[in-house]
Amino acid sequence: MTNVKSYIKEHKQRFLNELIELLKIPSISADSAYKNDVLKTADDIKISLEKAGCDHVEICQTKGYPIVYGEKIIDKNLPTVLVYGHYDVQPPDPLDLWHSPPFEPVIKKTEIHPEGAIFARGACDDKGQMYMHVKAMEFMTRTNQLPCNVKFMIEGEEEVGSPNLAIFVKENQEKLKNDVILISDTGMIAPDVPSITTGLRGLSYVEVEVTGPNRDLHSGLYGGAVANPINVLSKMIASLHDENNHITIPGFYDKVEELSKEERAKMAKAPFNLEDYKKALDINAVYGEAGYTTNERNSIRPTLDVNGIWGGYIGEGAKTVIASKAYAKISMRLVPHQDWEEITQLFKTHFESIAPAGVTVKVKPHHGGQGYVTPIDSIGYQAASKAYHDTFGKTPIPQRSGGSIPIVSLFEQELKSKTILMGFGLDSDAIHSPNEHFGIFNYLKGIETIPLFYKYFTELSK
Amino acid sequence: MTNVKSYIKEHKQRFLNELIELLKIPSISADSAYKNDVLKTADDIKISLEKAGCDHVEICQTKGYPIVYGEKIIDKNLPTVLVYGHYDVQPPDPLDLWHSPPFEPVIKKTEIHPEGAIFARGACDDKGQMYMHVKAMEFMTRTNQLPCNVKFMIEGEEEVGSPNLAIFVKENQEKLKNDVILISDTGMIAPDVPSITTGLRGLSYVEVEVTGPNRDLHSGLYGGAVANPINVLSKMIASLHDENNHITIPGFYDKVEELSKEERAKMAKAPFNLEDYKKALDINAVYGEAGYTTNERNSIRPTLDVNGIWGGYIGEGAKTVIASKAYAKISMRLVPHQDWEEITQLFKTHFESIAPAGVTVKVKPHHGGQGYVTPIDSIGYQAASKAYHDTFGKTPIPQRSGGSIPIVSLFEQELKSKTILMGFGLDSDAIHSPNEHFGIFNYLKGIETIPLFYKYFTELSK
Repeated sequence: MTNVKSYIKEHKQRFLNELIELLKIPSISADSAYKNDVLKTADDIKISLEKAGCDHVEICQTKGYPIVYGEKIIDKNLPTVLVYGHYDVQPPDPLDLWHSPPFEPVIKKTEIHPEGAIFARGACDDKGQMYMHVKAMEFMTRTNQLPCNVKFMIEGEEEVGSPNLAIFVKENQEKLKNDVILISDTGMIAPDVPSITTGLRGLSYVEVEVTGPNRDLHSGLYGGAVANPINVLSKMIASLHDENNHITIPGFYDKVEELSKEERAKMAKAPFNLEDYKKALDINAVYGEAGYTTNERNSIRPTLDVNGIWGGYIGEGAKTVIASKAYAKISMRLVPHQDWEEITQLFKTHFESIAPAGVTVKVKPHHGGQGYVTPIDSIGYQAASKAYHDTFGKTPIPQRSGGSIPIVSLFEQELKSKTILMGFGLDSDAIHSPNEHFGIFNYLKGIETIPLFYKYFTELSK
Repeated sequence: MTNVKSYIKEHKQRFLNELIELLKIPSISADSAYKNDVLKTADDIKISLEKAGCDHVEICQTKGYPIVYGEKIIDKNLPTVLVYGHYDVQPPDPLDLWHSPPFEPVIKKTEIHPEGAIFARGACDDKGQMYMHVKAMEFMTRTNQLPCNVKFMIEGEEEVGSPNLAIFVKENQEKLKNDVILISDTGMIAPDVPSITTGLRGLSYVEVEVTGPNRDLHSGLYGGAVANPINVLSKMIASLHDENNHITIPGFYDKVEELSKEERAKMAKAPFNLEDYKKALDINAVYGEAGYTTNERNSIRPTLDVNGIWGGYIGEGAKTVIASKAYAKISMRLVPHQDWEEITQLFKTHFESIAPAGVTVKVKPHHGGQGYVTPIDSIGYQAASKAYHDTFGKTPIPQRSGGSIPIVSLFEQELKSKTILMGFGLDSDAIHSPNEHFGIFNYLKGIETIPLFYKYFTELSK
């Protein structure tokens, strides 16, 4: 693949400007107030795919937000790469912790990004990483170096659990037929330590509601005499972990994949410094399941975390009230072999069973997805490995991610092909957090590495 | 005391209209957004006291909201009654549970209020009950039947713990000098079961903050590996009660007044139906400290309730985040002899001590007050008892209330006089809750009963 470096150098400023324009649109799929922004983003993606040389670019309607599809078929006998990404973003709150408005992108240098990083919601997850593929496509088509067929499928509901993508995939198996799926929605270990994600955690996300008395009560007249939904919810949540931080839901661990000593020893070799980790988060100690390291806890072990809790008076000052209701959003990260629907049911049954007399409990499943593991001896993995080696000068490290891309296991099931996760973000890029950013170095390295994946995948497929 | 009934009959509509106008002003002391409304309410109270015949009515400035003072001194040799009340109200949220806007008063009949009740925030607590005294004063002055001296002290910070009233009282001991203090800010057992509150619970109100990582984190990348402030806060709150619902804070019960078998037996005689109680709250069971009845749990026993909790993502949909911070507002109702400042310190010390590694905890005391008990053999209690007997045809039952009026114990300490709590509201009037209301029967009965208290107190003081 020739002159990819010079092409990037020549068009660098435009590549940055185009991404910045995309980041200005608050495409928050979780909040219906931003509906028009999400739809506008889909339109812009369509235009950018056309400009990058895709044919038959279309906005495919779903029951929710549309999926943008585009393709370039140059020869039916050549392999086909299906690129998946998403154009929606996480809600930006808490807004007061952002140093610049989440949808007014700014470029700032940081210790880990000496060449500068773009600060904006979605910069890394996933607009920035998705757009690397659009620009890599542009390079390959404009320089006539596209070695195989390409299909793009960019959705707008990933941050709310892709409720409609599954249906779309099931109904369009022929259209989406491919030899490998390529996704950049994960991270790499460090700017100088490329890595390929070989495992993802599954997810079960639920919302719980605890109802006590039929109205808010005066805590003086009723305090101590009726079940307080907030106290009760706290007690119920607390009981979901034992003193070793094992999850107490009966059957929760039954299908958990136990890694061998060898596999765990291999994992332990990945560069990791606990002191730096604590320093970066400003915590005096890590916390988690007894018997596992930090890297194991956030990758090969399942978790249960409260993502949000609310009830009673949360305004300024004081109000002496016993709330009628208390709520929590709870998510469980799952590991390969744990079935998310089964786990959701186990949670529901258990949570309802531990409700004390005096309250009623509702568990509302939000969404979920299965975990995933990809073998490192596949053609796809090998092609990605060679591509990284060319651009970073070293062989990438295979790593398990604690994150979830529920759709990946569905792809395998429905499209019968493996997914290669070429992530260029860093854990410190603060995705899902205030001040999310994406390094310019990482962005351009991605655009440089992706075409090489196409090249090697085509060669190795012969 | 002649023709009080006929006077009320004649002016009933005006008495209702004047109260309704007062209830239209959202005097929410807890929320600074309503500052001007609180101040306007003070002005209106001043005018109403003047119209009722008070002299030297003034708006006394404090560091917070002003105290409205007014008096009528007819003879230095006659006893003096000091009337205390408050013109501020609780925040009305949750607004969506109100059947009519909280500051647009409406009159509706209910099962327990066949003559109708005024629905509005503050209708019962305390604008309605405070205004009974203003109208009773009007009757006594207009009909030349005022038997003694009267002083009014109406404050605007009761719902936020009266932070400035204590200073005002300390600095104005001569001005506030009195023989008995009269307050209507409590309830009665039933429309046909008058009662006088002889005990109040103390209060300690705190806000806690649990901080984990220095920013919100992606629950996939960090879940299971760092302390989640919401999970931790839930665990800490849960640990504040043991399996018998005893509070676990060391030293918490050391000074709790233990009632004798006889006293508890006497209490148990007060009319109470557990099934009706559960039905009214729509709960299948009561809940509370083992070894005590419902009426004991909410009156003679101390409590710890979470009044509000928040953290993480509480918006629409789902967000897979580990929050940096989680918060709770916690209040403890205290019984006589428990010192609120000591209890606040015990809470702070204990709560900070149970914080696990990986988080930092802040405890911010909001406000508090001491509990109170008044003897039933005092002249004040006897005068009130006779007044109720005249208007209700039966002797009122002495009862302990679970609520708190922190200022009462301070009055005794600073002004050396006892407080008589003549409450005309009902527990079902939903004070501090959506759809707060006050029965027209109760309102008018209060106006009818109060002048008789003045009469009997003056007679018994001779």
